[in-house]
Amino acid sequence: MDDPAFPHGTSGELTPDTIAALDAWWRAANYLSVGQIYLLDNPLLRRPLTRDDIKPRLLGHWGTTPGLNLIYAHLNRVIRERDLNTIYVTGPGHGGPGLVACAYLDGTYSEVYPHIRENEDGLRKLFRQFSFPGGIPSHVAPETPGSIHEGGELGYSLSHAYGAAFDNPDLLVACVVGDGEAETGPLATSWHSNKFVDPRQDGVVLPILHLNGYKIANPTVLARIPEDELIDLFRGYGHKPYLVTGGFDGEDPIEVHKRFAAVLDEVLDDIATIKADARAGRYDAAPGEEQHGSTPSWPMIILRTPKGWTCPHEIDGVQVEGTYRAHQVPLANARDTEAHTRILEDWMKKYRPEELFDEAGAPVGLATALAPDGDRRMSANPVANGGLLRKPLSLRDFRDFAVDVPSPGATVDEATKVLGHWLSTVIEDNPHTFRIFGPDETASNRLAPAVYEHTDKQWNAEIWETDDHLARAGRVMEMLSEHQCEGWLEGYLLTGRHGLFNCYEAFIHIVDSMFNQHAKWLKVTREIPWRRPISSLNYLLSSHVWRQDHNGFSHQDPGFIDHVVNKSADVVRVYLPFDANTLLSTYDHCLRSENYVNVVVAGKQPAANWLTMDEAVAHCTRGLGILEWAGTEVPGDSPDVVLAAAGDIPTLEVLAAAKILREQIPDLRVRVVNVVDLMRLQSETEHPHGLSDREFDAIFTTDKPILFAYHGYPWLIHRLTYRRHGHDNIHARGYKENGTTTTPFDMVMLNDLDRYHLVIDVIDRVPGLSERYAELRQNMQDARLAARQYTREHGEDIPEVANWAWGDSAGAVGENRSVDTGGDNA
Amino acid sequence: MDDPAFPHGTSGELTPDTIAALDAWWRAANYLSVGQIYLLDNPLLRRPLTRDDIKPRLLGHWGTTPGLNLIYAHLNRVIRERDLNTIYVTGPGHGGPGLVACAYLDGTYSEVYPHIRENEDGLRKLFRQFSFPGGIPSHVAPETPGSIHEGGELGYSLSHAYGAAFDNPDLLVACVVGDGEAETGPLATSWHSNKFVDPRQDGVVLPILHLNGYKIANPTVLARIPEDELIDLFRGYGHKPYLVTGGFDGEDPIEVHKRFAAVLDEVLDDIATIKADARAGRYDAAPGEEQHGSTPSWPMIILRTPKGWTCPHEIDGVQVEGTYRAHQVPLANARDTEAHTRILEDWMKKYRPEELFDEAGAPVGLATALAPDGDRRMSANPVANGGLLRKPLSLRDFRDFAVDVPSPGATVDEATKVLGHWLSTVIEDNPHTFRIFGPDETASNRLAPAVYEHTDKQWNAEIWETDDHLARAGRVMEMLSEHQCEGWLEGYLLTGRHGLFNCYEAFIHIVDSMFNQHAKWLKVTREIPWRRPISSLNYLLSSHVWRQDHNGFSHQDPGFIDHVVNKSADVVRVYLPFDANTLLSTYDHCLRSENYVNVVVAGKQPAANWLTMDEAVAHCTRGLGILEWAGTEVPGDSPDVVLAAAGDIPTLEVLAAAKILREQIPDLRVRVVNVVDLMRLQSETEHPHGLSDREFDAIFTTDKPILFAYHGYPWLIHRLTYRRHGHDNIHARGYKENGTTTTPFDMVMLNDLDRYHLVIDVIDRVPGLSERYAELRQNMQDARLAARQYTREHGEDIPEVANWAWGDSAGAVGENRSVDTGGDNA
Repeated sequence: MDDPAFPHGTSGELTPDTIAALDAWWRAANYLSVGQIYLLDNPLLRRPLTRDDIKPRLLGHWGTTPGLNLIYAHLNRVIRERDLNTIYVTGPGHGGPGLVACAYLDGTYSEVYPHIRENEDGLRKLFRQFSFPGGIPSHVAPETPGSIHEGGELGYSLSHAYGAAFDNPDLLVACVVGDGEAETGPLATSWHSNKFVDPRQDGVVLPILHLNGYKIANPTVLARIPEDELIDLFRGYGHKPYLVTGGFDGEDPIEVHKRFAAVLDEVLDDIATIKADARAGRYDAAPGEEQHGSTPSWPMIILRTPKGWTCPHEIDGVQVEGTYRAHQVPLANARDTEAHTRILEDWMKKYRPEELFDEAGAPVGLATALAPDGDRRMSANPVANGGLLRKPLSLRDFRDFAVDVPSPGATVDEATKVLGHWLSTVIEDNPHTFRIFGPDETASNRLAPAVYEHTDKQWNAEIWETDDHLARAGRVMEMLSEHQCEGWLEGYLLTGRHGLFNCYEAFIHIVDSMFNQHAKWLKVTREIPWRRPISSLNYLLSSHVWRQDHNGFSHQDPGFIDHVVNKSADVVRVYLPFDANTLLSTYDHCLRSENYVNVVVAGKQPAANWLTMDEAVAHCTRGLGILEWAGTEVPGDSPDVVLAAAGDIPTLEVLAAAKILREQIPDLRVRVVNVVDLMRLQSETEHPHGLSDREFDAIFTTDKPILFAYHGYPWLIHRLTYRRHGHDNIHARGYKENGTTTTPFDMVMLNDLDRYHLVIDVIDRVPGLSERYAELRQNMQDARLAARQYTREHGEDIPEVANWAWGDSAGAVGENRSVDTGGDNA
Repeated sequence: MDDPAFPHGTSGELTPDTIAALDAWWRAANYLSVGQIYLLDNPLLRRPLTRDDIKPRLLGHWGTTPGLNLIYAHLNRVIRERDLNTIYVTGPGHGGPGLVACAYLDGTYSEVYPHIRENEDGLRKLFRQFSFPGGIPSHVAPETPGSIHEGGELGYSLSHAYGAAFDNPDLLVACVVGDGEAETGPLATSWHSNKFVDPRQDGVVLPILHLNGYKIANPTVLARIPEDELIDLFRGYGHKPYLVTGGFDGEDPIEVHKRFAAVLDEVLDDIATIKADARAGRYDAAPGEEQHGSTPSWPMIILRTPKGWTCPHEIDGVQVEGTYRAHQVPLANARDTEAHTRILEDWMKKYRPEELFDEAGAPVGLATALAPDGDRRMSANPVANGGLLRKPLSLRDFRDFAVDVPSPGATVDEATKVLGHWLSTVIEDNPHTFRIFGPDETASNRLAPAVYEHTDKQWNAEIWETDDHLARAGRVMEMLSEHQCEGWLEGYLLTGRHGLFNCYEAFIHIVDSMFNQHAKWLKVTREIPWRRPISSLNYLLSSHVWRQDHNGFSHQDPGFIDHVVNKSADVVRVYLPFDANTLLSTYDHCLRSENYVNVVVAGKQPAANWLTMDEAVAHCTRGLGILEWAGTEVPGDSPDVVLAAAGDIPTLEVLAAAKILREQIPDLRVRVVNVVDLMRLQSETEHPHGLSDREFDAIFTTDKPILFAYHGYPWLIHRLTYRRHGHDNIHARGYKENGTTTTPFDMVMLNDLDRYHLVIDVIDRVPGLSERYAELRQNMQDARLAARQYTREHGEDIPEVANWAWGDSAGAVGENRSVDTGGDNA
């Protein structure tokens, strides 16, 4: 029995009328695309084209566009015939004019932008605005209805497509992959996403690899390998490939329409069979059963057409159509000579606009006959405007998962493990709208085993009996590709769902550029009224710089925060919770938020709990605060020195330094400050979370030394505070790119962030101390040397540090000699 | 006739003695690997193992190691038999103990680290130092002889391998790819490198995919797909795959040795045939000829063995060998109970150390019988310590390529195009040691067509008649994968050659994390006496943030500089040449330098030339300087305001602002400063290029307003100068993440970097001006509005800006309405 969302087709539907409608849509979309690239005026060519009708700056990309338009037209047909719920992901998103043209033809464009009407004046505006100051971008962009995928940086279309398909069992995601894009690493591995999609509970991704032979100035790899290799490659990727070649040597496009339509029907019938089989349980095989047949071979299409198909074949005696010269603006000099202006006019007239637009300039019925209705239009599908569908998560009270903190530091927990217990309930309560993504680090980051209480890792390849928590469907997605995790999560969020990406801190840099694009997308969507807010992109970065015990220098890099804070303050948030309760409070906030990127850095190793849950909530609400129990201030009086910390390890060292100071310099008035919300440090004029100067001054003083122990590269503290009154008094410590495989305390010593060095810093910076406490200063130097010596002899940290505790009753919170059974990454 | 470097084998060589020697090496290497992970003492187990013999912190990765050791042993055999010149690239580089063990067995280790002798004491030290404070890192690292590939972040092994093979026609690069690593994007596309290697002029990469089924806590994709898919995949990648499976269900390793040895012989015979054919010209087919047979199907090996093979099969009733539990330290509790200590002892004794080490503790002849001699040892091959082989480039005098600058701004050129002419001679004069890498952007960045004067783009797939400058061998390497470009170049540099990576500025973030790893590698190698300096990694970033005319917001990100300056000051350099002559001078410097990462950002659009070559050389030598002709200072007197700029567009706007000020406020003493070497801004205590405070103060003053127009995110200027005396007077302008597809001047206006806004900044900040020049201030506001209005109406910049010139004789240096035939990226 068919899956209702994916019926088999009925044969014999491809009438001449349908073919004519396909071709009319295609010609109309091509005409509108060329018009956008070239024309300021005279949109219907109802008078001879003149130089002044042409834009002074010709910006855009034609090469990929006719292929995108062809696919769009054909998808329209099958959407109507089978009542499919479909979105269109445009890998070669620089083909922006094509997607705008198609959204205009199906009526969506005029609905969301009412000033672009369906008449000659609307056409004029549609053309003029493209790549024009004050208009719309050159690429498929947030401004483009129906898009969840910016056409800027290439490589992520399939990851986005699969992210959209997860938990959307009735959705078909048509994903056009460009042959240039296909050379990127992220795209090359994203074909393997088919091993992670569950044919029963997830939707269907239909990849359409569009081979047009060229990138900007070079051929593409996949267009230039033997056809048997090409077919083998996609079989090897686990797909059933279908190849359609057409449009070469002037072949009549009608023949291509026929072939492509027939293949599309065949492909959709394959999909219908797979979905029906999945409903019947064919792919539910358990471990140990016969597995080779249990993962379906999803179909994919390879469409080979000339680059820039239908543009002038030759210009000035040089071949353009079918070459790299058609990549961008094939007729770059359309405005420069009368002859070139005529070439443009002839090119546009070849699409026979008089057949496609009526007297008023509206597209005629033939050209729009294939447009589906309402939300079935790919440009109008609410899935591609995920905020419309998004429902807040059902979240249990995180306070119920609090760890007990009878006094500061009196108990010890692994913060991420505690978070895992709460996340397990998020999974339980939101079985279809929340997923956790990670590059095989969920266990190492200690969210496991808790998160597997109510779910498994989704895996649709072979399962062995020695595997743990693998299943055909599950809430945890793990592939050793940060690109895939990021891309899947972005696709999942953009279509209205929720999730988080847990990753080793150092390796999140792998997706720096993907983060850039997503942050830019969010910034732009905030200005687009019809785009509804989506869930925030939440990072959980653990296995951080200070505790890379198994790996060392290559795994030490806290610079993602520096990267993130360059992006618009409207969209980025950075949190450094310093114990289990502050992490819980922070993450609850993140999972409720919209349209942000939240970066949360947290420890996974056993570490002291400092705040009760009530204190943690209050502290996180303020974003930073004075830890009164840790300091030696006299109420109402200003301190002699401020010890500030952001991050779990820096806070530990600051507290240990504060304890030494309390014992050794009892008359010194020390204030201890912890910062969870890093953006509080910025000026309120620069970031919405920024403290006012008055608040900042009240906490940090304007005239006292501030020793700031920071989790990451120390200069970021200066960059965030350079306008603050007390800025010149700040001395920041942090990771200075010194590291190797060594003990935790040796790591902080290597970077002068250790408690002993902080005490030395205080002695050196508080007026009058260096004379009185020369001996203490020397003792601190000696303690550093002794610690180093001990570590090199014994291979572990000195007992004074390993067993250090804030209060008498506290457990050891220093080094943990734990032997990771979960393991660390390579 | 055979290629002398790659002879066919002679049959019948695999005697029982050879098999025994293979197995002995393998057992010895495995023994030494386990010893490194676990033992502090008792290295030969000549007394019963005790708890105190075991390290307190057990850190390392066993799972991949036995496979790495097996491959190493077998490669030794064929190197000896065929006299091959071979290096070993370890994709699963977390298997550090294995590579250290093999380097010890072939004698290299004791040569480069004489304190690690070939006796019991040496073994004790070898074991103890591993992952130990003061010792060596846990991964394959710069400290590991024979390595060019850090075992930290996964995904780049094949790219590095191909980089090593380019222009090394006699080299065999054996590259082990882990099945976890194989899931990463960069690795997934790097298989296509075989289309870029020339069988005649380049060396051979032999990929060995090691499938052991698991990553950290999850199965791997390639180990869990049907075998026919696996084979199809590698056929699709253009390889001829050979599969060896062994070691499961307790199979005798001797049988695996036999099978693997036989396959290796077959594979090397395939390679010998391909190389012989290449010498005979079989692969030299030109465009239009029969192409399908012209790209060889290079062999590759798939080796499937159990994860952690030969470790205890079960521990405490749970299977370990062959599961993810063997990834790191399979017996994590070896120290905790007597029973577990015995398990460790039994495990190590299974390798029969008494057969492998003599009385003194030196490896016996049987265990080292396969070691090749001298430089043929993979650990000692000088190719893997490229500085030993590196020869400086032959460089013509860049001054001869200077553009003529009769007066500042009097001529116009495209800076990167000018550089291209000089680079063309670098190519001509260094035909085997210099390459240019780029993701299909060499033309767009305007190094072409000049760079193709003496070379082509290397391309070993199908060539069409419509292609330009493609050939089987060439100096320019273009694939649409920044990962590949970076990895290839790194491999090329690490093996002693030279090159540069040209890329769009925004998309260089794609390799942020690869840059991290290379910068860390360079930092560490500076401390290793036997590692010789290699050529610097040179970036040429063009199509930068201010001139992304075709693309817009997604292509605007100048933050790579921020990312780079977080790394050790010993290795990073950032240059912002602001015209053609300063770019020439800068790049000459970069191509001569060693052990740095040089980031150069330069414009590609027609722009004014400001400095004569003599001036440019002097200016670049200082790294920054006062442009006296542009200011209105009175000699010997201090200025009223400093206008500083870094970058071509900011300098243009600063000069235009200076011209307005000169005309409108003639009594204002303006100093104009340009910064080419950004690191000059840092304190001399923080960066070797840093100016002394005295020098800084002399240029920037300590008390006058400094308006700093910067190419990138403006806060970086504060981060670099926060300790400078005049810091509080600095007001930085730069890219504030405002952008879209618009005109060049609209871009600077969107970010308040334009000339009019700079004049307003001066009026607002120089005491006394705001009252006197309220009207000028209003005029500047009006000029901004007018410019915006004009642009939105006409789609191009106002003539005042487009035709602006510094002097009377100058050409227009504002907007260029050029229609890019080279095209821009997607």
